[in-house]
Amino acid sequence: MTAARHPAWLPPTAWRPLGSRRCLLATAGPPATAGPLLDTVSDELVRACAEHGGVLRRAAGDAAPPDGGDEPYDLVLALVDAPLPAAAALAELRRAAAAGPLGAEGFALARRDGTTVVLAERPTGLLYGLFQVVRLGESAFGPARPVEVHRPASGIRMLDHWDNVDVHPVMGQVERGYAGGSIFWRAGAPRGDRELIRAYGRLLAAGGLNAVAVNNVNVHGTEARLLTDRLGDVAEIADTLRPYGIRVHLAVSFAAPMTLGGLPTADPVDPEVRAWWTATTARVYETIPDFGGYVVKADSEGQPGPFGYGRSHADGANLLADALAPHGGVVHWRAFVYNHRQDWRDRGTDRARAAYDHFAPLDGQFRDNAILQVKHGPMDFQTREPVSPVIAAMPATRLAVELQVTQEYTGQQRHVCYLAPMWSELLGFRPWGADGPTVAELAAEEPDRSAGRRTAPGAGLVAVSNVGDDPFWTGHPLAQANLYAFGRLAWAPDSDPVALLDEWIGLTFDPAATADPGLLRDTLREIMTDSWRTYESYTAPLGVGFMVRPGHHYGPDVDGYEYTSWGTYHFADRDGVGVDRTRATGTGFTGQYPAPWRDVYESRDRCPDELLLFFHHVPYGHRLVGGTTVIQHIYDSHFDGVERVARMRSAWQRLTGLVDPDLDARVRDRLDEQLRSAQEWCDQINTYFFRKSGVPDAHGRHIH
Amino acid sequence: MTAARHPAWLPPTAWRPLGSRRCLLATAGPPATAGPLLDTVSDELVRACAEHGGVLRRAAGDAAPPDGGDEPYDLVLALVDAPLPAAAALAELRRAAAAGPLGAEGFALARRDGTTVVLAERPTGLLYGLFQVVRLGESAFGPARPVEVHRPASGIRMLDHWDNVDVHPVMGQVERGYAGGSIFWRAGAPRGDRELIRAYGRLLAAGGLNAVAVNNVNVHGTEARLLTDRLGDVAEIADTLRPYGIRVHLAVSFAAPMTLGGLPTADPVDPEVRAWWTATTARVYETIPDFGGYVVKADSEGQPGPFGYGRSHADGANLLADALAPHGGVVHWRAFVYNHRQDWRDRGTDRARAAYDHFAPLDGQFRDNAILQVKHGPMDFQTREPVSPVIAAMPATRLAVELQVTQEYTGQQRHVCYLAPMWSELLGFRPWGADGPTVAELAAEEPDRSAGRRTAPGAGLVAVSNVGDDPFWTGHPLAQANLYAFGRLAWAPDSDPVALLDEWIGLTFDPAATADPGLLRDTLREIMTDSWRTYESYTAPLGVGFMVRPGHHYGPDVDGYEYTSWGTYHFADRDGVGVDRTRATGTGFTGQYPAPWRDVYESRDRCPDELLLFFHHVPYGHRLVGGTTVIQHIYDSHFDGVERVARMRSAWQRLTGLVDPDLDARVRDRLDEQLRSAQEWCDQINTYFFRKSGVPDAHGRHIH
Repeated sequence: MTAARHPAWLPPTAWRPLGSRRCLLATAGPPATAGPLLDTVSDELVRACAEHGGVLRRAAGDAAPPDGGDEPYDLVLALVDAPLPAAAALAELRRAAAAGPLGAEGFALARRDGTTVVLAERPTGLLYGLFQVVRLGESAFGPARPVEVHRPASGIRMLDHWDNVDVHPVMGQVERGYAGGSIFWRAGAPRGDRELIRAYGRLLAAGGLNAVAVNNVNVHGTEARLLTDRLGDVAEIADTLRPYGIRVHLAVSFAAPMTLGGLPTADPVDPEVRAWWTATTARVYETIPDFGGYVVKADSEGQPGPFGYGRSHADGANLLADALAPHGGVVHWRAFVYNHRQDWRDRGTDRARAAYDHFAPLDGQFRDNAILQVKHGPMDFQTREPVSPVIAAMPATRLAVELQVTQEYTGQQRHVCYLAPMWSELLGFRPWGADGPTVAELAAEEPDRSAGRRTAPGAGLVAVSNVGDDPFWTGHPLAQANLYAFGRLAWAPDSDPVALLDEWIGLTFDPAATADPGLLRDTLREIMTDSWRTYESYTAPLGVGFMVRPGHHYGPDVDGYEYTSWGTYHFADRDGVGVDRTRATGTGFTGQYPAPWRDVYESRDRCPDELLLFFHHVPYGHRLVGGTTVIQHIYDSHFDGVERVARMRSAWQRLTGLVDPDLDARVRDRLDEQLRSAQEWCDQINTYFFRKSGVPDAHGRHIH
Repeated sequence: MTAARHPAWLPPTAWRPLGSRRCLLATAGPPATAGPLLDTVSDELVRACAEHGGVLRRAAGDAAPPDGGDEPYDLVLALVDAPLPAAAALAELRRAAAAGPLGAEGFALARRDGTTVVLAERPTGLLYGLFQVVRLGESAFGPARPVEVHRPASGIRMLDHWDNVDVHPVMGQVERGYAGGSIFWRAGAPRGDRELIRAYGRLLAAGGLNAVAVNNVNVHGTEARLLTDRLGDVAEIADTLRPYGIRVHLAVSFAAPMTLGGLPTADPVDPEVRAWWTATTARVYETIPDFGGYVVKADSEGQPGPFGYGRSHADGANLLADALAPHGGVVHWRAFVYNHRQDWRDRGTDRARAAYDHFAPLDGQFRDNAILQVKHGPMDFQTREPVSPVIAAMPATRLAVELQVTQEYTGQQRHVCYLAPMWSELLGFRPWGADGPTVAELAAEEPDRSAGRRTAPGAGLVAVSNVGDDPFWTGHPLAQANLYAFGRLAWAPDSDPVALLDEWIGLTFDPAATADPGLLRDTLREIMTDSWRTYESYTAPLGVGFMVRPGHHYGPDVDGYEYTSWGTYHFADRDGVGVDRTRATGTGFTGQYPAPWRDVYESRDRCPDELLLFFHHVPYGHRLVGGTTVIQHIYDSHFDGVERVARMRSAWQRLTGLVDPDLDARVRDRLDEQLRSAQEWCDQINTYFFRKSGVPDAHGRHIH
C-alpha cells in the first residue's frame, strides 16, 4: 500500500542530478562500526546511483581512499576524521570546520575543481549534507561554490502528532487531522506499516527534522499506557525512524502515577510519585536508549496537572525533567494553559493573557532540560495573531515556539494556505523593536544574549504535524509544502518562505517531465505564495479570530463561540466590533509586551490594521491606517478574497497535463471546495456585519 | 436490575383501593381458551388482592358465577357474553353496550348498589377497564356512578422509539434520547431484559397505548436487518409486549430491496421490488402474526425514498401498504419531507411549506392502510409552532398526528416541561375556525365528516418516546407525566391536561405515605402545570423557533442555525426580527391554511402574539396585541422566565421528606441545571437582541 503513496519532495527524479555522478563516501574506522546513519547515507547513494547511472565508492578504515583516477569525483561525502583524497575543496572545508565545530548534525559544503564536497563530524551531518545536495540539484554540480557551513538553529526540531491509538469518539484517529488516519496507529493498535513510517522519517530528515512525538497531547486511557506496558509499540517506531536520525518523544499524562502506577496521588513533590517517574523513565531508556523525552499538556482543557495539588507548573515540569535528566532526555511542557470554563459575561478575564499570567512569574524556576513549549500566538493558532508575549518574558527559561502545520484554523487542508510566510513573519518579529533580536534569534539554541534578553538557550521550533495515511500524505497535495517549509525553518528560521516554496516545487515536480517547467513554477507560485493572506482576507477580519463552527472549526459561524466558555469573543454589536485589550480601558493584555509594542498595540491609530480588532473595539466607521473604514474593509477584503480564490482555481487549470493526473484531480476537487467555502465565508461575514451595522457596501455589491 | 426501577404510575400503592376488595372476573368459554390478555387481567387482580388483602373469584365457562353470597362483589369485570350474576349495574351496562358497540378495546363502567362493574366485548377492553378502576382509586368504590362508555379515539395509539441497535457514532444508542440507553437494544444486540420490556408494556397499557415501533426512523445498516435475518429480535419483543395488548411496528428502509434483497433498484413500481416486499412481509407475519406494520421516513434528511426513482410518496407508501394489506398491517409514512440542503441566501424557499407542498397534491391517492404521519407543526417539534396545515388539507387521506414526548427542543428532560397543555392546545385547534372541527376530531378514527372536511378515517396520535434504561425511565422523574399524558390523550384527546396531571400525581405518589398529600399535589401542580409556557418564556421568542445549539439542540445559540442548510432562520438584523411567511410579501405559507386562519396569520395585527415572529418580520418597536413592544417583550419574558424557574426550584424544596429521597435528589439536580440553563438562555437572548437593537430595557435591568 505504500507503493501507491505520493513521493512528496523525494521522488526518484529529485536524485537524478546526484545519482548520475561519480561519488565517494569516506568514513573512518572499520565498516562494521558504521551504524545506521552511515548505512542510510550509503543506501541512499547506492540506490540513486543504481537508478541514474552513477558510481559510488565507499572508503572506510584507515587507508586513504583512491583519488578517483583519471576523473575526479563529482561528489565526496566525508567525515572529518576520515583519511581523504587531496581534493582542493577539502582543505578549505577542513579549515572551516576547525574554525567552529560543525556539531552533531552540521555539515560544510563547497565545490572546487569539479568536485562537490560535504564534510561532517558525524554521520547525521553527512545525511543532512546529502539532502542539501539533493535540494541543490544540478546547481550542486555547476560553478564553484564557496564554503557554506550549515548548522541547525536548534538541536531539537520536532513534530507533535496528535494521533490517538484508539479512535476517539469525537476527535477520531487523529485529532485535528485532515489527511486520513494515523500513520502510526489504527483502531487501538499499532498500524505496523514500517515501510510507511520509514518513508515518513526519510521525508522529515530531508526537510531537516529530527524528533517526533508519536501520540496526542490529549492523552486518553490507552495512549497513557504507551509509557508502560505498551512501550514496545513506541520502541518499534523508534527503531524504524532511527536510521533517519529521528528520535521519538511521548506525550504523557500527568496523572500517570495514579492511573498507571496505582498511587493515591500525582503530586509532583510526593516522594513516591518522584520515585515512580524515575523508575518508569529508566525503564523507557532501557527499551529505547535514544528516547527523546516527554511532552505534557497539563491543567489544560481537562488534562490533569500540578494545579490539582497546589503546585506550580515549574514543579510539574521539573518532576519529569529530573526523571529524564540522567538519560539526556527533555520534557516539553506546554504553556497552553487557560480557563476554558470562562464566563462570556465576564469581560475582565482574557484568554490571551493566560499563558503569560501563568508562566512569566515562573521564569528561572525550570530545569535546564525542561522546555516550555509556547504557542506562537496568545490564543490558538488563528490565521492572524500577534506574537505571544511569553516569548519575550522568560529569558531564563528554555523556550520552544509551537506552530501548527496541520491546518486546523487555516482551511483544514481543503484550502490552499501556504503557511511559511506567516511563520517567517512571526519568526522575524522583534519584541523589543527594530534594535532587538527576532523571535527566531530568541528561540535559537545559541540565542542573542545581548542586553540580557536571553540567558538560557532557546529550544527551537515544534509543530503539530499535518500528515496522515492519505496517499498524498497531507490531504491537499499542496499542503506538503507546509510540512517541508516547517522543517526547513526549524533548521534555518531565517529562510525566505518564497525560496522554500521554490525548493519544494523544484524537488516535488520533475521539471524534465513537464513541457513547460516555467509555467509550472510560476503557476504554483501564483497560487501558493500569498495563499495565507488570501485565506485571511475571506475569513475572520482584522485579527479578531475564530468565527468558525464550534467543534470541528471548519467554515464560518460568526457567533459560534461568542457566548461560550472558551474565551474567544468578538463583541460585535450594532455599533462596532473587536476586543478591547488595552491597558487604558480593556483587559490590559497590551501591557504584557515590552516597549515599543506595548504602546503600539495600545494605540488605535498605531496598531497594525491586521491586528486592530484583536486589540481594540472600534466603531464600524473607524478608519484604518490604510484609509478605509472597518466595515468597508470587511466587505472589500471578503469580496476580494473570493475573487482571488477564483483566480487560483483558474490558474490551476493551466497545469492540466503538466502534473500527475491523480494529483491534478485531487487539487481540482479541493479548489472547488475552497471556492465554495470562500464564498460561504464571504456571504456569511458580510451579511452578519451588514445586518448588524446597517452600513451598505460603498460599491453597491450584493450582500444577502 | 429492573428491581431498582421506579414504578412510575403503577406503584403497588396505586392498587390498594382495588386490591382490598371482593372481586369477580367473569369470562365466557373454558379457561384454557382465555389467551394472554385475560391472563394479564387475572394476574394483575391476583397480585393486587394478594398484596392488599382482597379476594378474587374467577368464573369462566357456561355456568353462571356465584352472586357473591352475603356480601355483593365490590368489583366485577366481565365480558359481555359471560353468564353473569344479577348485579343491578350490569343490566344498565348491557343496555349501554348494546346501544353502541364497545369495540375491541372499549369498555363500559358503572357503580350501583355497592358493586362497580366493568363490561367489555374483548379481554383487551377488560384490561383497559381494570386500569381505569386503578385510576379512579377510592372513588371507584364510593357513591353510585352512572354508566360511562370508554372507547379510544383511535385503534392505533403508538410510540415511536428512535432507538438504534448499534450505538450510532453521533446519535448514540437512542437518537434524541435523554434517559440513558435503550430498553430494547444495547451495543448491536438485543438487550434481552424481558422483565424490563414487560414492565414498560404494562405502563403503556395503563396509559392507554397499544403500539410500539421498536427502532429509529433513521434506519442504519444493522437496524435495516430487523426486517429479515434479525426478525427474531423483534419477535421476542412482540412476545413480551403482547400480554399487554401492545403490537410491535418496525421502521424500515425504503432501500431494503437493494440493501437486503440484492435487487438493482428499490423503484416502487418495479415488479421485483413489489414481489420482494410481498414475500418479505409475508415472512414477517409468519413469525409475528399480530405484527402492526411499518414506519417509514423516506426522502428525508438523507434517507432513501421514491423521489430517487421519480415516483411520488403515494407510490412509495402504497407499495408497502399493498404488501401489508393481506395481513391487516398498516404503514405509517412520515410527511417530514423537506430540503435540508437549503441555501440560507434563498428567502423564497420555506421549510414550513414543505410537507404541504409535497403531500397535499397527493390527497386521495393513498391506500386505506397507508397512514400519513404528520408532525403537529410545520417545522420540527419546536416549543411553539402553528398547527401543520397538512392536517386540514388531506380529507381523503388517513392521517396520524405526530407528537414528540422526548424533549428534544423542550429541555431534554433536564428541564421540567409538562407538554400536555401544548398538545391539548393543538388538539383543540379548529382549522376552519370556531364552527369547524378540532384537530382531535379530524384525527379520530371516526372523524367529524361534516362539510366534507374529512372523508377518510383519522389515525390518531403517534409520538416519539421519552423512555430509556434510566432508573426513573425518563431521566427527569417528572417527565414521566408526559408519557402518561400522551397515552391518555391518544385514547381521549379531549382530556383536560390539568386533570391528567392530577391523575398522574395521584397514581405516582402515594398519598398515604405523605404527611401532607395536599401540599404534594399543590406543589407539583405549581411546578408543572405551566412549565411549558415557562420554558417558552426563556427560550426562542414569539414562535420564531430554534436558536438552539446545532447538533445536540440543548441550550441557546441564537445564530446557530441562521446560516445553515436546515431552513431554520430568524433573520434578525439591527432593525427587526422574524420570518415573513405572508402571501403579500413573504413565502406565502399563510396561504396553506383555510379561512379564517389564512387571514388571521396574514395580518400583523391579528396574528396571535405567540406566533408573531413565525409569520412576520417586524421592527423591534412593533407593538404586540398585549401592548408591549417586541424587544421589550423579549426582555420581559426572559427575565420573568428565570424568576419562574427559581420559584419552581424553591417550591420543590418544600417536598423534602415527602417524596422518595432518590427521586428528590434527581429532581433537585435537574432543577439546578434548569435554573442555570434558563439564566444562560435569558442572558444570551437578551444580550443578542440588545447588541442588535441597541434598545435598552425599559426597567433598567442588567443586560450583559
